[in-house]
Amino acid sequence: MKLLRYGPPGQEKPGLLDAEGRIRDLSAHVGDIAGETLLPQGLDRLRAIDPASLPLVEGDPRLGPCVGQVGKMVCIGLNFSDHAAETGMAVPPEPIIFMKATSAIVGPNDPIELPRGSEKTDWEVELAFVIGKTAKYVSEDEAMDHVAGYCIVNDVSERAFQTERQGQWTKGKSCDSFGPTGPWLVTRDEVEDPQSLKMWLEVNGHRRQDGSSATMVYGVRYLVSYLSRFMSLQPGDIVSTGTPPGVGMGQKPQVFLKAGDVVELGIEGLGTQRQTVVQG
Amino acid sequence: MKLLRYGPPGQEKPGLLDAEGRIRDLSAHVGDIAGETLLPQGLDRLRAIDPASLPLVEGDPRLGPCVGQVGKMVCIGLNFSDHAAETGMAVPPEPIIFMKATSAIVGPNDPIELPRGSEKTDWEVELAFVIGKTAKYVSEDEAMDHVAGYCIVNDVSERAFQTERQGQWTKGKSCDSFGPTGPWLVTRDEVEDPQSLKMWLEVNGHRRQDGSSATMVYGVRYLVSYLSRFMSLQPGDIVSTGTPPGVGMGQKPQVFLKAGDVVELGIEGLGTQRQTVVQG
Repeated sequence: MKLLRYGPPGQEKPGLLDAEGRIRDLSAHVGDIAGETLLPQGLDRLRAIDPASLPLVEGDPRLGPCVGQVGKMVCIGLNFSDHAAETGMAVPPEPIIFMKATSAIVGPNDPIELPRGSEKTDWEVELAFVIGKTAKYVSEDEAMDHVAGYCIVNDVSERAFQTERQGQWTKGKSCDSFGPTGPWLVTRDEVEDPQSLKMWLEVNGHRRQDGSSATMVYGVRYLVSYLSRFMSLQPGDIVSTGTPPGVGMGQKPQVFLKAGDVVELGIEGLGTQRQTVVQG
Repeated sequence: MKLLRYGPPGQEKPGLLDAEGRIRDLSAHVGDIAGETLLPQGLDRLRAIDPASLPLVEGDPRLGPCVGQVGKMVCIGLNFSDHAAETGMAVPPEPIIFMKATSAIVGPNDPIELPRGSEKTDWEVELAFVIGKTAKYVSEDEAMDHVAGYCIVNDVSERAFQTERQGQWTKGKSCDSFGPTGPWLVTRDEVEDPQSLKMWLEVNGHRRQDGSSATMVYGVRYLVSYLSRFMSLQPGDIVSTGTPPGVGMGQKPQVFLKAGDVVELGIEGLGTQRQTVVQG
C-alpha cells in the first residue's frame, strides 16, 4: 500500500494511492496515518479494504507529511561511504545518530524556507523507514518486523549552523521546513530490497545526487537493532538513513540553495518530492 | 499555579496542586496539561478556577511527567561555567544545543533504567522551561511571553554512549527513562527570577550537586530568543537549560549510577524528584 495524508497543514486527512495513482479517502476507516494505525494489525485492516470502495478525492490537494504525530525523527550521519569521502570525513566505525526536531517535518512538496542568516542551506535525498511496532533491544533477525514501511526524506541541512556554530548538528538540521517527508508511506511488503533502491536529487533540473541505497554502510535491518539498544523506537517514529554523494557542500566549488531554486528528488518505488526554496 | 499529571503511565490525568499541597483533579476543565492548555489564555482560564471547587484526589498516585504530548525536548550543553570546568571543556561562545528523545521522558519519581551495557550512567539536575506560545524569531524583549512555566528535569546521561560511541550526544541522552520531568509545571508568574534558584542533587543521601541557576551562562530569556532563530518552539516543548557542577564524571574518582542507587534532586520553588536506579 501507498499511504498518504492530504489537505491543509495541520488538517491532513488519511488517504491511500490506488493502482491508478488516484487518492482515495481513508477517513471513514482511520483517524490518521500515525501511531496505532501503523501496527501490523492496523496495516492488515487497511489491506483488507477494497480501494474501489473508498471515496475518490477530487482535484490535486496538497500532500502533507505521509506520517502524522511523529514522536521522533532520528537521522543517521555519514552512512554512505562515498558521501563520507566527499565531506572529507571517515566512515564511522558505528552509526552516528542525531535528531531532527519534529517541528521541521513538512509535506513533500512544501517550500523549503531558508532560515534568516543562512548562507549554506544544503540538500540530502534520504531513504527513511517508519516504525510500525515498538522496538527495544531487538535482534537483527527480528528487526524488520518493526518496520511499517519506507518514504523519502529530504534531510535539509544548514552547514554553517550544523558545524560552525558550536557542537552538535541539531542546530543545522532542525529549522522549520527542513524535513520534507513523503509523498507516500510505502508499506514494507511493497519494497523487495530496501538496500538496492536508486536515489536521485536535482536542483533547477541539474542532477546533483545520483546514487543507490546499495552503498549504504549500515542498512535498515542493522539500524533498527542498533538504535533499539539506545532508545525505544515507537510506531510512527521515522529514521532517515543518510545520503549518497552529491550534496552542495561536496561540490567544487560548493553550491548552496538560494530563494527561487527548485529541488526535485526521488527514490525508486517511493515517488518524488518537489520543493521551491523561499526566504524565511 | 502548580500543574501536574497523575495516574498510570500513558493514562495520566491533569491536576493542580492546591495551597495545602493536595492534588485536585482538573479533568473536567482540560484534557491534558499540554499544547493549547499552555497558551496564555489557557492558563488564565485555569487561574480563574477556585481550587476548592475541584475534586480532591485521594491517596498518593504516581506523578507522570508534568507536561504531556511534548513535541521536542531541547537541551543546552555546558551552560554553567563551573560545570564546563569540571568536564574539562571551555564555556562555549554560543549555546550548545542537543535533543533528548521525547520517549525518554518519564515521571519525576519513576525508576531510572540503566541501559544494557551501560557503565557510565550519570545525573544532571536541570532547570527546564516549558513553551506556552509559539516562538519563531523572537527578540529577548518578547522572549518571556513565550514561557508557560518551569519544572525540574534530571538530564540523565550515559557518558560512554554520549562521547565514546561516535559523534553527537543524542545516543547517551535519549535512553528510555533518561528524562524525569516534574513534579509540577510551576507557572511563570510564581517564579520571580529563574536566574537565582538553588539547585541540588543527592545520590544515596550524599550531596553531589549544590548550585544555583545564577551561574548559568545563557539564561532563559536569551535561550528562548536564540533557539527561535534555529527552529520554532511550540506550546509544550521543553527546554532544559544545563546543569551545575557535581555530576558523576566530574568526581575524582568518577562515580556513576548502579542498580539500587537512589537519586534525589530539587530546585527552589519547583519541588523535588526521587528516582531509584534499576537495571534495564
